Amino acid sequence: MASIFTKIINGDIPCYKVAETEDFFAFLDINPNALGHTLCIPKKEIDKLFDLDEPTYNGLMAFSRRVGIAIEKAIDCKRVGLTVIGLEVPHVHVHLIPLTTIEDARFINKTKLTPEDFEATAKKIAAHL
Amino acid sequence: MASIFTKIINGDIPCYKVAETEDFFAFLDINPNALGHTLCIPKKEIDKLFDLDEPTYNGLMAFSRRVGIAIEKAIDCKRVGLTVIGLEVPHVHVHLIPLTTIEDARFINKTKLTPEDFEATAKKIAAHL
Repeated sequence: MASIFTKIINGDIPCYKVAETEDFFAFLDINPNALGHTLCIPKKEIDKLFDLDEPTYNGLMAFSRRVGIAIEKAIDCKRVGLTVIGLEVPHVHVHLIPLTTIEDARFINKTKLTPEDFEATAKKIAAHL
Repeated sequence: MASIFTKIINGDIPCYKVAETEDFFAFLDINPNALGHTLCIPKKEIDKLFDLDEPTYNGLMAFSRRVGIAIEKAIDCKRVGLTVIGLEVPHVHVHLIPLTTIEDARFINKTKLTPEDFEATAKKIAAHL
């Protein structure tokens, strides 16, 4: 069965899209640690980061760098952190999280945003790409 | 002044070394989230991940992949997570953390190890490189 992220890529589940290439896709995390928290994923549905073939892994990291630099320009923060955990959704995803304190990296405190906030944030980041 | 990580690279501060190339260095985190928690760093002393020039960023991620695959072979865990935060030491470092639960990714619960544990763990990971 297609992962929730594959359904997002295919447009079967809506998302706030930030960027897309032939092989990769970026969209806002719907349950963000902080404003601007973005997920970068390969379109190829693989569960574990280190099970990606080398070109896909390298491509995902290069894509995440491009998106991360755009987030740092668009969102007020000390820096953008990068995290891959993956114990919940079995489809590799790179979290890019605008950090102000270490708490923003812990996946405990969540930020509530309106649909308008999400829409504006995705547009703001995309404008820096 | 040299960062604590530059001092480790130069051998001025001891560490449990896992791997080294011309440009990158890997060693065990001395205050680990879990057994096998490893740091991968560029020898170039740069504070923020997305301030690394593109070849150094790409090289660091490729080096981290090699070390991450070795950790997954050497250490009992569900998968190895990858995290860059960097709010404490101003020298880019990629955390590679053997994960069993999400708690292992939160930098809250720490694991106490003896020098013998560290020594054996570093050797075990290095043997898979």
